[in-house]
Amino acid sequence: MAGNSFGKLFTLTTFGESHGIAIGGVVDGCPPGLPLSEADLQPDLDRRKPGTSRYTTARRESDEVQILSGVFEGKTTGTSIGLLIKNTDQRSQDYSTIADRFRPGHADYTYQQKYGARDYRGGGRSSARETAIRVAAGAIAKKFLKLHFGIEVSAYLSQLGPIKIDNIQPSIKESNPFFCPDPSKLEELDAYMRDLKKSGDSIGAKVTVIATGVKPGWGEPVFDRLDADIALAMMGINAVKGVEIGDGFDVVEQRGSEHRDSLTPEGFTSNHSGGVLGGISSGQDVVVNIALKPTSSISVPGKTINLQGEEIDIVTKGRHDPCVGIRAVPIAEAMLALVLMDHCLRHRAQNAQVTSITPDICDKSKS
Amino acid sequence: MAGNSFGKLFTLTTFGESHGIAIGGVVDGCPPGLPLSEADLQPDLDRRKPGTSRYTTARRESDEVQILSGVFEGKTTGTSIGLLIKNTDQRSQDYSTIADRFRPGHADYTYQQKYGARDYRGGGRSSARETAIRVAAGAIAKKFLKLHFGIEVSAYLSQLGPIKIDNIQPSIKESNPFFCPDPSKLEELDAYMRDLKKSGDSIGAKVTVIATGVKPGWGEPVFDRLDADIALAMMGINAVKGVEIGDGFDVVEQRGSEHRDSLTPEGFTSNHSGGVLGGISSGQDVVVNIALKPTSSISVPGKTINLQGEEIDIVTKGRHDPCVGIRAVPIAEAMLALVLMDHCLRHRAQNAQVTSITPDICDKSKS
Amino acid sequence: MAGNSFGKLFTLTTFGESHGIAIGGVVDGCPPGLPLSEADLQPDLDRRKPGTSRYTTARRESDEVQILSGVFEGKTTGTSIGLLIKNTDQRSQDYSTIADRFRPGHADYTYQQKYGARDYRGGGRSSARETAIRVAAGAIAKKFLKLHFGIEVSAYLSQLGPIKIDNIQPSIKESNPFFCPDPSKLEELDAYMRDLKKSGDSIGAKVTVIATGVKPGWGEPVFDRLDADIALAMMGINAVKGVEIGDGFDVVEQRGSEHRDSLTPEGFTSNHSGGVLGGISSGQDVVVNIALKPTSSISVPGKTINLQGEEIDIVTKGRHDPCVGIRAVPIAEAMLALVLMDHCLRHRAQNAQVTSITPDICDKSKS
Amino acid sequence: MAGNSFGKLFTLTTFGESHGIAIGGVVDGCPPGLPLSEADLQPDLDRRKPGTSRYTTARRESDEVQILSGVFEGKTTGTSIGLLIKNTDQRSQDYSTIADRFRPGHADYTYQQKYGARDYRGGGRSSARETAIRVAAGAIAKKFLKLHFGIEVSAYLSQLGPIKIDNIQPSIKESNPFFCPDPSKLEELDAYMRDLKKSGDSIGAKVTVIATGVKPGWGEPVFDRLDADIALAMMGINAVKGVEIGDGFDVVEQRGSEHRDSLTPEGFTSNHSGGVLGGISSGQDVVVNIALKPTSSISVPGKTINLQGEEIDIVTKGRHDPCVGIRAVPIAEAMLALVLMDHCLRHRAQNAQVTSITPDICDKSKS
Repeated sequence: MAGNSFGKLFTLTTFGESHGIAIGGVVDGCPPGLPLSEADLQPDLDRRKPGTSRYTTARRESDEVQILSGVFEGKTTGTSIGLLIKNTDQRSQDYSTIADRFRPGHADYTYQQKYGARDYRGGGRSSARETAIRVAAGAIAKKFLKLHFGIEVSAYLSQLGPIKIDNIQPSIKESNPFFCPDPSKLEELDAYMRDLKKSGDSIGAKVTVIATGVKPGWGEPVFDRLDADIALAMMGINAVKGVEIGDGFDVVEQRGSEHRDSLTPEGFTSNHSGGVLGGISSGQDVVVNIALKPTSSISVPGKTINLQGEEIDIVTKGRHDPCVGIRAVPIAEAMLALVLMDHCLRHRAQNAQVTSITPDICDKSKS
Repeated sequence: MAGNSFGKLFTLTTFGESHGIAIGGVVDGCPPGLPLSEADLQPDLDRRKPGTSRYTTARRESDEVQILSGVFEGKTTGTSIGLLIKNTDQRSQDYSTIADRFRPGHADYTYQQKYGARDYRGGGRSSARETAIRVAAGAIAKKFLKLHFGIEVSAYLSQLGPIKIDNIQPSIKESNPFFCPDPSKLEELDAYMRDLKKSGDSIGAKVTVIATGVKPGWGEPVFDRLDADIALAMMGINAVKGVEIGDGFDVVEQRGSEHRDSLTPEGFTSNHSGGVLGGISSGQDVVVNIALKPTSSISVPGKTINLQGEEIDIVTKGRHDPCVGIRAVPIAEAMLALVLMDHCLRHRAQNAQVTSITPDICDKSKS
Repeated sequence: MAGNSFGKLFTLTTFGESHGIAIGGVVDGCPPGLPLSEADLQPDLDRRKPGTSRYTTARRESDEVQILSGVFEGKTTGTSIGLLIKNTDQRSQDYSTIADRFRPGHADYTYQQKYGARDYRGGGRSSARETAIRVAAGAIAKKFLKLHFGIEVSAYLSQLGPIKIDNIQPSIKESNPFFCPDPSKLEELDAYMRDLKKSGDSIGAKVTVIATGVKPGWGEPVFDRLDADIALAMMGINAVKGVEIGDGFDVVEQRGSEHRDSLTPEGFTSNHSGGVLGGISSGQDVVVNIALKPTSSISVPGKTINLQGEEIDIVTKGRHDPCVGIRAVPIAEAMLALVLMDHCLRHRAQNAQVTSITPDICDKSKS
Repeated sequence: MAGNSFGKLFTLTTFGESHGIAIGGVVDGCPPGLPLSEADLQPDLDRRKPGTSRYTTARRESDEVQILSGVFEGKTTGTSIGLLIKNTDQRSQDYSTIADRFRPGHADYTYQQKYGARDYRGGGRSSARETAIRVAAGAIAKKFLKLHFGIEVSAYLSQLGPIKIDNIQPSIKESNPFFCPDPSKLEELDAYMRDLKKSGDSIGAKVTVIATGVKPGWGEPVFDRLDADIALAMMGINAVKGVEIGDGFDVVEQRGSEHRDSLTPEGFTSNHSGGVLGGISSGQDVVVNIALKPTSSISVPGKTINLQGEEIDIVTKGRHDPCVGIRAVPIAEAMLALVLMDHCLRHRAQNAQVTSITPDICDKSKS
């Protein structure tokens, strides 16, 4: 256990480097009887995969996932599910020049300090390529949550650099390369990204992830709170520097009388809490915001040091996303789905015998 | 394991309700040979304890912690450390009126949904009282980190409602009841809190936590990143709705050329990353911001429903903090110390034999 | 996490030394709604406690357990349950002579090597006194398993030194100080123990633990098999050197045609497997044997070395059980109950939605 | 986490069914800098693989393992190591006849009860084929333990049915297909197995596993004792029904004066304890015995029931080992190596700063 596993009961363990033979993972704890095939996983992988638009890295990976075990006659058996994606477009020669130096803003320096050496090809294990397997595993969780509870997990781009997206029309977000739910902002985004690419620089972004249909009662009260595990999951995505649940940092200036969500026989009257109270889901929408830093892999020249501690100039070549936040959309969905799936199983482990004796007001809530 | 344990190798497991006999916990995994007594834990408990100023709850708890095991002849033995704090000022009669209703903004409704019943006295397990044991355990971690590595973990109030605190003079933060490091804001804070109490309302806050002296190389690269575990820890504190590492949500509008911290032979030239790159500590200061919501326990009347789903009026009586963010300062320090301690042990488990071959530039850094 | 926790979902974490202030523990993951009070735990504690007969240590401990949390209005709430037993008859002066030497057959030498020091009073953490909390936690598991599934967990002495006990009459085992189910062996046991005490020596024992009423389907198929977790639990009891499931070591000389238990419409025709097939419960009785070594705390003089590595003579004074196997009976029951409880929760976490489609032949089995 | 992971810090997670596409696993927590290639893993895989002699199953698998990640420029990087072995000789048609019936002595009935369905091809996940990945992972642990501490882990057949092997000459055990260390028993074994195959029956076996060179101080004192984790590991091997440490069940008839191992300035004078005292290694040889049941896959006809609960006759066809104990030899070594590796890392996590102040008598011991 050195950080390559996620989840307590629905557990994903991953392996693989950006420029190795393959990346893969094991999903353990999936309930049996779930209809599953590669076709359930591929759509989300295709949403995440590189080379799909001019706004993302030019690296082309087919990202075809193979299910190696745990499924029999079209259904999960309850045993561990092996997942494999072969790397096909590594071009590791691109990276040879950075073997002896630390790219600023990257994990090069910290890996070297931790392990005494590092796989410098394309970031090795620290590459965002690793997240493809999370997306595949997340698709399994999504399918279970949808089938058994009607839960939907969906994310969109809510800000890219200075461009704020607030007129949310979810239906259009999948029909543009930005996962942008506001059709009026598409041209502005396109122009911004075009200029950015020319400048050789990169930009940060904000992504919003929402789960609807979550049952009340999922989560734990003290350390493994639902929101705490969501924070763990989100901050564990490459480039994420901030996580908010519900109103997030806006609560700093709110008063209690303004923040607290009233309960009525017709449901909650607002959702400042983002669907979590005391670490446990309320049944309202779970609403999460994450901040993604601009990638440090840019062609703008910079200063750094080499393995010998000498100052040198650096320009990151290779093929990179000018805004990693865009492709983070399906990754964030996957991570939220993994957390919900895990807490679904944890909840029923302890509380399967509980008969909810309270009114389930959330069915009627404006969530 | 139902959410009452924190940490993989340096583990805290807690128990206890607000109005039960006692709260307590077990620290497992503490290295042997650490000089330790109750006197090491009490100062942080005293910083957290209620009833110390007119800005906090009037409940008076001596919060005297007792070490029941794991220490022999003044030093830790390496076996588990039992901690106990007796509850002395429960007054559970204060709470009888809320037994059949759900306080809005509280965990009442979600506990009821999860468990089918709840200990309604003072919030039971969801009470912030539970955090006293975290503070005691954090003090053990702090002592080890200080003694072996010179690490200091320190937090302060950085915003209270509309009042932003930016002229940081760390030396004064312990000499006022707000943990405010800016002497010029003390009067404003005092006036604001006085008005707030009169209004019966509450207010949110922002707290900044910083660890100095952290060694480079702590953390894990994929899921259990140092920053992800910090997010888990912080979002696991009552009332926290947002967590930032380094520049946090400001990165959304930053460019890569602006965000990335350059390395030079004299050290990093900036610390936008907040001391973590690729999930692993860089040796710079670890900088964390958290947003705390205003407590929902206010005397401003509100609407809610009872166990039968009927609409009723509610006014929360009892003794509560108008700004829970203030007392969160020592709690946030404790949680960061627990995370660092855990990753210190995890790092040496895997990498004890690594000889750092790179220049440790951080000793020279402006952090 | 340094070995003081047991279980994945129903977790016991313990603390405390033989001669410290108290021993205690935290049970996490107990389902809510279980009627529980100290009166449920005390009977098993009384069965384990020292000083009850002339065959056990003369140390007198009332072993009164206190439930500090997790129970409200007579029922478990689903939050963590704190348990505390104060040490009342420590007499640590008895042990001062062994501070600088390693008792042969004890953990003195290995603790010193591991931790660089040790709490030498009465064995410190390695004392069997620690098991009292296991017995208390096991009683919680027993109650849940009995109430919800009708499961009974019961152990007895099956051999003491050369005296084999094979005429099993369960009803009488609680009415004699040996937990011996064969009334015809009581006199022989009494005579043997009397002689043994005179000689100042100790003797090994075998204990059989049986769980009836276990549901089919509990356990995991690969590493955390039900039988593997039972082995972990049993070998984790002080002095245990061997564990068998079902026919145990007798299988070495069995043929497949003899060993395999046939299934018939009326149930299994035999139970060589001991109730576990492929790591998963079959619904038959779970049958476990454990071998307990003779305590090394004897008054027969021996040779050892001191902290300086010099040869010295040693005679263990203090108050010890001449046959630790006897008092292991309730401990073994507790550990089996903890394993079953844990796997009960693990099973329903993953498989709550499974409708058993096969005939449950076990209800009709001769188990 | 549904039982497919082993180890706390050096963790193996496996996947794969007997007749699926491939089996595989992930090793997480391996220290960086260990020279490693497939050539280090293949020898043990070849020792375990089927089809190597007339005494084992006729299934022919090349069992070529591929390292997919975690190794760069010939050394481990500290990131997770992906392992893959393709299945090449599945012949799943052999198994179609057992789809609707429960083979006695197998996991068929228990899997069906647990999961509501099962992959019936060749035992699916319950097949011993799964252990190939354990052997590969164990070889990584073995290499680290050998290189850093000089530890050797070695097993041999110590009994096969009625044939006891007690004249141990370790050097010859690898030169015969029985892993038998006694040259005088080879003919008898050959004759016995020949008769057994003719009869269509199977036989049990006992295997002894020994680790030499283990450092004193590894293990934990209460639940995760070194011997308890060894019991977990061994009972988690298919067909194992009993585990002994040191003298095992012989201790039942031993006296304390006979069992305890005296310490002298020249080392321990005996090793009844099997190298573990109080759950922690003493530095002596770690000695483990395991009992393996006869496989239930035999051509001797038997009775069972089908999915409808009707009585039917059964004859297990397919290709099976008449004595699964033989091929368990490298598996048992792998599992012991995994346990030692895990506790090596756990020990240094907590105790890296401990300077052993006691004489290390074990270097001089007759172990």
